[in-house]
Formats: sequence, structure tokens, C-alpha cells
Amino acid sequence: MNAVKIGLIGLGTVGAGTLEILQRNSRDIAGRAGRDIRVTRAAVQNLAKQRMVDTTGIELTDDPMQVVNDPDIDIVVELIGGDGIAREVVLRAIENGKHVVTANKALIALHGNHIFEKAQEKGLMVAFEAAVAGGIPIIKSLREGLSANRIQWLAGIINGTCNYILTRMEQDGLDFSEVLKEAQSLGYAEADPTFDIEGIDAAHKLTILASIAFGIPLQFDKVYVEGITGVTIDDIRYAGELGFRIKHLGIARRNQDGIELRVHPALIPEQRLIANVDGVMNAALVMADAVGPTLYYGAGAGAEPTGSAVVADIVDVVRALTSDPNNRVPHLAFQPGSLAALPIMHIGQVETAFYLRMSVINRPGVLAAITRIFGDSEISIATILQKGHDAKGKEVTIIMLTQVTPGNYMSNAVEQIEKLDAVTSKITAIRLENLA
Amino acid sequence: MNAVKIGLIGLGTVGAGTLEILQRNSRDIAGRAGRDIRVTRAAVQNLAKQRMVDTTGIELTDDPMQVVNDPDIDIVVELIGGDGIAREVVLRAIENGKHVVTANKALIALHGNHIFEKAQEKGLMVAFEAAVAGGIPIIKSLREGLSANRIQWLAGIINGTCNYILTRMEQDGLDFSEVLKEAQSLGYAEADPTFDIEGIDAAHKLTILASIAFGIPLQFDKVYVEGITGVTIDDIRYAGELGFRIKHLGIARRNQDGIELRVHPALIPEQRLIANVDGVMNAALVMADAVGPTLYYGAGAGAEPTGSAVVADIVDVVRALTSDPNNRVPHLAFQPGSLAALPIMHIGQVETAFYLRMSVINRPGVLAAITRIFGDSEISIATILQKGHDAKGKEVTIIMLTQVTPGNYMSNAVEQIEKLDAVTSKITAIRLENLA
Repeated sequence: MNAVKIGLIGLGTVGAGTLEILQRNSRDIAGRAGRDIRVTRAAVQNLAKQRMVDTTGIELTDDPMQVVNDPDIDIVVELIGGDGIAREVVLRAIENGKHVVTANKALIALHGNHIFEKAQEKGLMVAFEAAVAGGIPIIKSLREGLSANRIQWLAGIINGTCNYILTRMEQDGLDFSEVLKEAQSLGYAEADPTFDIEGIDAAHKLTILASIAFGIPLQFDKVYVEGITGVTIDDIRYAGELGFRIKHLGIARRNQDGIELRVHPALIPEQRLIANVDGVMNAALVMADAVGPTLYYGAGAGAEPTGSAVVADIVDVVRALTSDPNNRVPHLAFQPGSLAALPIMHIGQVETAFYLRMSVINRPGVLAAITRIFGDSEISIATILQKGHDAKGKEVTIIMLTQVTPGNYMSNAVEQIEKLDAVTSKITAIRLENLA
Repeated sequence: MNAVKIGLIGLGTVGAGTLEILQRNSRDIAGRAGRDIRVTRAAVQNLAKQRMVDTTGIELTDDPMQVVNDPDIDIVVELIGGDGIAREVVLRAIENGKHVVTANKALIALHGNHIFEKAQEKGLMVAFEAAVAGGIPIIKSLREGLSANRIQWLAGIINGTCNYILTRMEQDGLDFSEVLKEAQSLGYAEADPTFDIEGIDAAHKLTILASIAFGIPLQFDKVYVEGITGVTIDDIRYAGELGFRIKHLGIARRNQDGIELRVHPALIPEQRLIANVDGVMNAALVMADAVGPTLYYGAGAGAEPTGSAVVADIVDVVRALTSDPNNRVPHLAFQPGSLAALPIMHIGQVETAFYLRMSVINRPGVLAAITRIFGDSEISIATILQKGHDAKGKEVTIIMLTQVTPGNYMSNAVEQIEKLDAVTSKITAIRLENLA
């Protein structure tokens, strides 16, 4: 059979990784796909720039639309990122009847519903394994490997920058800002790290995972998002004393009032496998009714790990080229008519346990006042630790673990406690997840 | 579209689990597959027996061939196990032009080459995700998710019985035989546990994983197989002191002299994620050139975990019913013409580090004699621990960790050392794997 012709949009880190893999492993890949796969055209930002990869035999252009409009191209691979030009490129490719592979989480999270609708109309595939957790085949596992299951919840370490920072803080007792600077110099964090450390990148990925897990439309704007900038080395130490590690998680859970969609730091029991996923590595833990817990671990970013997922998607598309469009793996795991209109819960309704840290003046009646507020708010305390001076009148740190309680009960209680004279700081509240 | 009609052969543990899932999650599964999936006929061993599942609407028979020969059946699901009747059932199903789903590792490991050849001739699918590591989608991940990669090695905890026994020995300081009895009473081990504890079950699964990973024919008879009956609680303790845990692993590795295929207990560094996979859970760690390490974790057995994989295979087959047979996922990951004739290495050639335990009489010159034999055999010692009485003439235990050395160098050295007068026991030698 003829080689399948790929048009590559973007030859940055992931583009170069993808091309490198297609070249190095071309024989194995063809042996698996049953057809040769050849990149014949590529769009780059700057034609004059020195390339890290061999582009012999590839027609280069700085106009993505030239690639997308080329009638010879079978599959458009979009690797420029963001939701500007990338969106136009993908929609035009679909209009032109081409299948699409993309690594673009923002694009899928924000515009996926529209893109998939257009693709569906034309009987085309849009594959996006590389958009979540880099080289880990988590989309495939959820959408195909667990297709027998009703998925109950999933929890993922899906931002390598956050995981690297938290790991280094813990292992080396460093402050957030020190580690961030180091991560930037190592290339593990962007010059502007906001997207990563504020949780937006993780929220894009969680949006996609939740859609596929529960068969709901993509709803990025309904994700509760909290980053890691409020986590201190003290919190990590106290959590450790109590047998927990702090990880930045994306969590999606089905319960009777709707779907929880939330990204935030969380204490998790140190003996959980996922609590031991360190550095830039990613992992997703999925709880499903038939199979029980399964976990998927690997590199969440980087040229070749992400390229690995892009190429796997290309092979999948090649294999399904001749299949009936109505019988392929649906974009969001369920056939378009079978998507569920489950409500997304407000974070105030979501029930979790909490870790709390506060500074108070050590004088009689303070703890009584605090615990009374919790009692009045129907919040049960599981553990209390007092750290610091025993002397009266000195500032001490109080650490508490609570039982499971709705988020708005907790924010009301926190607001009242912060008004107490003896409470000298804002209260740090971090959710605690048992993950079992 | 019409419902897809399934003929189920076997309604034991896995059969009942499969049926239960298909009934409970029928709406979700149809939403994913795009078609209803209905079990219309089932073959059971004893028609008079009380069923654990609802068989309303299913025509039961005690003759598997009646199901296989029924022209109405689209997919035959073989869940009786073993390589006797199961083989006939599967081959007849193929002859009759039916796709097959099976959870039968022995059948695939021993007769897969022939079965796939027959299926290929007829353009039929034979799916077998449930044959390895129960509900973990490891076949799918290797064959599709990592299709971009040249796989370098994989190491799996792929027998839950062995992992349960080793975990309980370690956590509770129990002897092998005590834990085995307990495992049998809990249903984690068979009345005749030979297949599990002697490593044969793991070897079946490793045979399949290695085929898919490297694109080689199934070669069960070339797997080196060692069980866990030789591992003592002392070995587990000494390994722990040195920072290792003992796990029963299936390992397949590509190197320049061929493919290593081996099942045996191994010391692995305790900080590895896979070292912390406990109890009956399974996991596979895969090292590949583009993505790096990925790990897959979950339940390796049980009615619904295995049923989860069976149903996922059914959905996959349903999705590919209309696709071009030459473009589907190849049975062994690579197109039949692309399978590699790589030699399987003899265990004597395979290079690993070793943990050694021996009893010796504590007298001058003994250690010199032992280390001289290692030196003459070109084996480097990394660590020596002496345990027990310091008094001269008393028996002491010596623990050694060696550097990487070919297996036959080690067996020669062990043979010579065992001949020394001062050496009072057989030497326990367990391989040590760094897994990084």
C-alpha cells in the first residue's frame, strides 16, 4: 500500500521529537501499522532557523495553511499549541477532509466539543493522546482499555512542573521560590510558570480525562482550580509527620449530586503508590466498578515521551483509515448521542477531609473557641497537633486534620476562626484525599 | 444497528464476572461501542448447577460446539481455560468465521502462533487482553499505546499468588508454607498451586508480553522458569536490610545477543514504584526508547477485573468488525510478515547481578577461599555481610551481592564453593535487578 502522508504543523520540541521517532523507528512503526508513514510537509515558525532534526525530503513552509490545504496530505499533526492559530489549522484540516492528531490540551479542553462535532460530521478522526500525561497511554486506557467499566473517580499527577517542585521541596527542604527558580533553569518550568503552578495546565488535562471517563461534554470553565503557590515547606513537613505526602492532583469523581471536577494540592497517604510518584513523572489512578483501581505511570512531558503519544495516535488513525466512521472509538469515549448531561458540582458542595494550619497565641480558651466553631459548623476534628513554644502568650502553630465535610462548611468555619483575636495568621487549608 | 451476538463458552468465575458486567453496564457499554452487545448463548459444564448470575434470555447448553457452530453468533468468548477443549473451541470458531475473545494464557502461549495464523487466513480477530495481568490494559498499552517505541525491556509482577505470598512473608514474618496454606483458604492460591508458585503461569504471560513487545513468535518452551519455593523469610529480611525487596518477576529484555526471557524471584531496589506493588496486585514496568519507563498497575485476577478485560476486548472487536482485516491491530503487534527471528538467549548467557546466601564454618581462610573462587570466575563482589556467631568454629551465614555476571559463570562458581569443606549448605542464589 502507499505510504500515509503526514503534514506536521510545528517543529518545536514535540515536533522535533515526533519526527525523530518516525525516522529512527520507521521500520518497526511500519511493521506495526501495516503501512509506511512519511512526513512529507512541515510548517515551521522560522524557515531560516537551524533544525535539531533531519528534514531531508520534507517540504518546509512557514505557512501552516499550505500544509493543511495540500490535497496530498492524509493526516495533519498539529504541534504548535495554544488555541489561536492551532484552532484555525485544526478546523481547516477537518474542513479539508483530513484526519488530525494533536498534542494540544488547551485546544481540546476549550474547543474540543466544537472540533469533535465538525469532525463527526465529516467522518474524521481527531486523536489527542499526547494532550494528557505525555507518553502515558491514559486516554487509550480509559477510553478503550476500561470500556467495560463505570468509572467512579480518577486522580492524577498531571503536571510535571508542580510535581517536580513539590518533590524537591520535600526531599531537600527548600522553599517554593527557590525550587521554582531551579526548575526554570533546568527547563522543567517555563519563564512564565503561571499556567503550570496555578493549576491551569492540569485543569485542561483534567477536563479531558473527566469527559472521557464519564461521557460528559468538555467543561473547562467549571473546573475548580488551585495551584501550589500556597504550599509551604512547613506544610510538607507536618503532612509527613502525619503519614501523608502533598501532591498536586486533578480529581474527577462521580457522585449522586453530579460530577466533581477539581485541581488542587492534596495530602495523600504516603503508602499509596501514587504518593511515591516523584519529580517530573506523571501518574493517573483510576477507580472503576469492574476492574477496581488501576494506575498508569510515566513521563508527562518532553520531546520524545510526548512524541511517542503523537506517533501512537498516527498509527491508530492509519489503522482505522478504512473503518466505518460510525464504528470507530468515539472522541469522548461515548457515541455523541450517548453523552451525559450530568451537572458539575460547585466546590462548596464537594465533600473532602482537610488539613489546616494556623498560628495562634497560646492562651487559655483559644483551642476551645476554635473547636467550638468547628462543632457549630458540623465539622469533626480527627487530629490536632500543636507545634512551637509551650509558654503562655507565645505564638504556636496548630495543625488539624478534619473528617469529610462540604467545602462551604469549611470556608465558613475558616472565616469565623480567622476573626478570633488569638488567631494571628490566615489559615492554610489543604484537602486530604484517602484515594482508596 | 443490530445487537452483536456473543456466545460465551464457560460460566465459571470469569464467565460469570463477564456476564455480570455486560448486564450491569449494558447502557454505558453500548454507548461506547455504538452497538448493543448481547450474550445469546452460553456453554456450561453442568446444566443442573445453580448459577451466580442471571441467565435469563441466554440459551444454555453443555456442548461448547453448539455455541461455536451457531450461525447467529458473531463473537465466541472462550473462558474455560487450559489447552484441551479450549483449543478445539477456538479453532472451530475461527473455521466457522467467528471472531474470538479469550482470557486463556496457556492457550495463547502454547498455541497462539497456530491460532493467529488460522485467524489471519480468515481475516478474523482473536483478542486476549484478559490473558495477561487481568484487568490491566497491558496488551493494549504495549501493542497500541507504545507503538512508536522500540521496547528495550519489561519486568512484570504477573502472578498474584506469588506476589501475595511474598508480601505476606515479608509483612508478617511468616514462612512460605504457612502463607501458602492461608492463601489457599482465601482462594488466592489453587488447591494444586504448582502452576503459580513454580512460575509456569507467569511464564505463559511473559511469553505473550515478550512477543508483543519485540515482535517475535510465541516461544513458551524457551522461557527460563523459576518459582518462589526457594525464597525464605531470611532472604526477604537480608534483602530488606540491604535496601531491596524480593518480587517474583517476568523479565524480557532485548540485547545484542538476542532476547532474554526469564521468570524468577529477584531483589529490586525498595524505592522503585514496582517494588511497592503488594498483595495480589499486578504491575508491569516497560522501558522503551522514546517514552522511557511506563508502569501499569491493577488487579491481575478475579471475576470482574478479568471480566473487565474480556468485555473491553469484545468492544474492540465490535468497533473493528467493519474495518479492513489487513489494517487491524496485528495479533502480535507486528504484521505477520514483520515478525523478527531474534534468538532467545540461554539463561547461562544472561547477565545479572546476584544475591547469595550460604552457611559456612567461621574459621580462618574460609572467606579467602570463597572470594578466590569468585575472582577466578571473573565475578566481582559488591557487598558482603556476615550474620551470626563471631566465635571460631561456629556456623555463620554469609550474604553477598555480586556485580553483573553471566549465569553460567555464577553456576560454576557456586558449584565450586559448595564443594568447600567449610561450606555447610547449598547456596541460595537470587538474581538482583536494578530496573532503571
